[in-house]
Amino acid sequence: MTKRVYLDYAATTPTDSEVVRVMQPFLTEEFGNPSGLYEEGRKVKQQILDARGRIANLIGARSTEEIIFTSGGTESDALALLGIMRKHKGHLIVGSTEHHAVLYNAELLAKEGFDVDYAPVDSAGFIDIDALASLIRPDTTLISIMYVNNEVGTIAPMRKIKKLISDVRAQRKEDGNEAPIFWHTDACQAAAYAGINVAALGVDLLTLNGSKIYGPKGIGILYVRRGVAIDPLWRGGGQERKLRSGTENVAGIVGLARAIEIANELREKEVERISELRDKLLTGIVKLIPKVVINGPTKEAGEEITGTQDRIANNVNVSILDIEGEALLLYLDQSGIAASTGSACDSVTLDPSHVILALGKPYEFAHASMRFTLGRETTKEDIEYVLKVLPGIVETLRKVSPLNLDIDATEMSQKKAFIADGLPHWERNKK
Amino acid sequence: MTKRVYLDYAATTPTDSEVVRVMQPFLTEEFGNPSGLYEEGRKVKQQILDARGRIANLIGARSTEEIIFTSGGTESDALALLGIMRKHKGHLIVGSTEHHAVLYNAELLAKEGFDVDYAPVDSAGFIDIDALASLIRPDTTLISIMYVNNEVGTIAPMRKIKKLISDVRAQRKEDGNEAPIFWHTDACQAAAYAGINVAALGVDLLTLNGSKIYGPKGIGILYVRRGVAIDPLWRGGGQERKLRSGTENVAGIVGLARAIEIANELREKEVERISELRDKLLTGIVKLIPKVVINGPTKEAGEEITGTQDRIANNVNVSILDIEGEALLLYLDQSGIAASTGSACDSVTLDPSHVILALGKPYEFAHASMRFTLGRETTKEDIEYVLKVLPGIVETLRKVSPLNLDIDATEMSQKKAFIADGLPHWERNKK
Repeated sequence: MTKRVYLDYAATTPTDSEVVRVMQPFLTEEFGNPSGLYEEGRKVKQQILDARGRIANLIGARSTEEIIFTSGGTESDALALLGIMRKHKGHLIVGSTEHHAVLYNAELLAKEGFDVDYAPVDSAGFIDIDALASLIRPDTTLISIMYVNNEVGTIAPMRKIKKLISDVRAQRKEDGNEAPIFWHTDACQAAAYAGINVAALGVDLLTLNGSKIYGPKGIGILYVRRGVAIDPLWRGGGQERKLRSGTENVAGIVGLARAIEIANELREKEVERISELRDKLLTGIVKLIPKVVINGPTKEAGEEITGTQDRIANNVNVSILDIEGEALLLYLDQSGIAASTGSACDSVTLDPSHVILALGKPYEFAHASMRFTLGRETTKEDIEYVLKVLPGIVETLRKVSPLNLDIDATEMSQKKAFIADGLPHWERNKK
Repeated sequence: MTKRVYLDYAATTPTDSEVVRVMQPFLTEEFGNPSGLYEEGRKVKQQILDARGRIANLIGARSTEEIIFTSGGTESDALALLGIMRKHKGHLIVGSTEHHAVLYNAELLAKEGFDVDYAPVDSAGFIDIDALASLIRPDTTLISIMYVNNEVGTIAPMRKIKKLISDVRAQRKEDGNEAPIFWHTDACQAAAYAGINVAALGVDLLTLNGSKIYGPKGIGILYVRRGVAIDPLWRGGGQERKLRSGTENVAGIVGLARAIEIANELREKEVERISELRDKLLTGIVKLIPKVVINGPTKEAGEEITGTQDRIANNVNVSILDIEGEALLLYLDQSGIAASTGSACDSVTLDPSHVILALGKPYEFAHASMRFTLGRETTKEDIEYVLKVLPGIVETLRKVSPLNLDIDATEMSQKKAFIADGLPHWERNKK
């Protein structure tokens, strides 16, 4: 059997064995329906309350009522966007580099008649605060800007966004404009390494899921600040304050609470350990392979390349020019390495990563992008193995490649050749 | 420790140990994201495909594409109702005794401007086919009638509904009316004892979930017949043919497939064993306790009371007059017996069961209704224990009850005293 080196932790993480352990009773003897008015139900209901309380504490929420359990990050994003906009109407702004769970629900809202604008990012993936400010209208209801980008690891300028929204609120008050403005952030990629405190962040809604933080798949939360009204995606038995009906996924809920706890405990140590490995990988790739463009925030000091403070600890993203990301992925897989081109969700289509494009890179750079995301089981030996194997694969692929790109190219190249309707989403929805 | 007798299997079932066993690898080593283009992803993707194929086979679907995985029964019902109506527009008919997952989504659609009608049932809970037929309009798009009622166990006249819809289609063809008409059924309560074959049933959409058939919580399917277009509830990464985006709950999916398999294997034997216990309980209650009204289809032969062919094997529902269901529930719980008044979901409100009301019973009968639902671990001793304990509790409660109802009453009593806005849903939404 080939040695396997898993470097796609941003797509999904293994479930922590301690999380699996705490879930077991709820898969077996503790099976009651929490709505049941008897011992079996009450016991389980109490466990849900307990998990809800611990999660509220762990993320800095003021009240257990602010935690809505969902089936995962995508549903939470959908509930935030569709829930706020359908309830309050008005204008929506989302970041250009959001996950498809945000972008495609924004498109859905555009089809329902809502005005949607896309906030641009700079070449390292940071939201352009001035541009964002200029997009805000008197009827802007919701701004959805992700905490940490899943592809290039950029940590958003959360304080500046908080300040901006606070200023807008003050201005609206002065103007006698009573329209509310809310801020949602998808924090799925942030929970393990950046930490989450909704009070400090100043967000109104926040998405978190289990499968990115060593918790179970099929469970997530949407934090909804007290006093913020949203429409549910559907109705039914009235669970989760009528915002998310359906019998509770008890094992998932209990597992998620434990996963967040463990993430909080390990964060500091893991950030240090993993960012060191991350920088070793970044430096090694650039040193060993010619024509590599780093995507996302980094700095160079001599031969050393490191992520900046604003890059999440576990993310490496590079465009390895003149080769196709998909081909590289398959060769890496044969050598026992699991990585990704763009997000895992993108790989069902052949569209190039919208994130790399939003950084202002040409289509060919997006097609050549490769993401390695490290995690708890990643070792120094794993990184050394990748650095041993990768250059040879790249050389092999380049030998058969017809491409010879200019590494300094910045222009968008033949759009029509690369994308179904020739336009990325932020141009598609322009009126 | 008091002996516990769990008789609320219709609210939720324990997870079969074999199901828990097959789930384990997907909670631990087999953790890949099925969208990943590498071994860890492919292996998991293959398992999902395999589970989907087995489920398709088990329920008589023609194609794996007809199986959409969701987070459970409520979401599946919502996806069916909202998905069909928002896509095709037109008029909606739902049964009066549907689960809240259907009823409240029908109300949501009514608020969105759709016309909704409620098909009445007879005194045993059977859909009145003539009444249903007369509700069908040239623009009726969807009829949602549950397979087995969760409260009183009535098995719907599926063949007659199939025939009716087939006739409507023929008539529309003759009339040159190209509007489609679809049939959705919530089969959550049917899977364990009635069996599901979508081809034989003739349904276009069917809801099934894990937690009612000894599978995991947090997983369900919506069967959508090939060629039937629906809108998703939200968008995102495009999983499940873009109808249900979000990273797949792999452990849940694999567990659900095994749970359906086991249900199919055990069905025949369990129906025989459990319906015998069910009849023993029914007969015993009526014999030992005065002023009991049986809800749902039964027949009497001398002292023997049995469910009819059209009553699901595991359901007992009785109104024990002059007492409050909630009080009885608490006393039973103290004696180690877990049961339900109406559906578990109802117990978060104090509204009387809409199902008992729809059978034409007075409000006081609904408030006094008690459901016992049997399951795989129910024994003869359990039933004997209930019959030993229940009469004494009822006697105690009746001693302190101010009520003395007429068992032959059929009139609706002071509505305002019992229900928030004084009207059950089928009257509330009348124009």
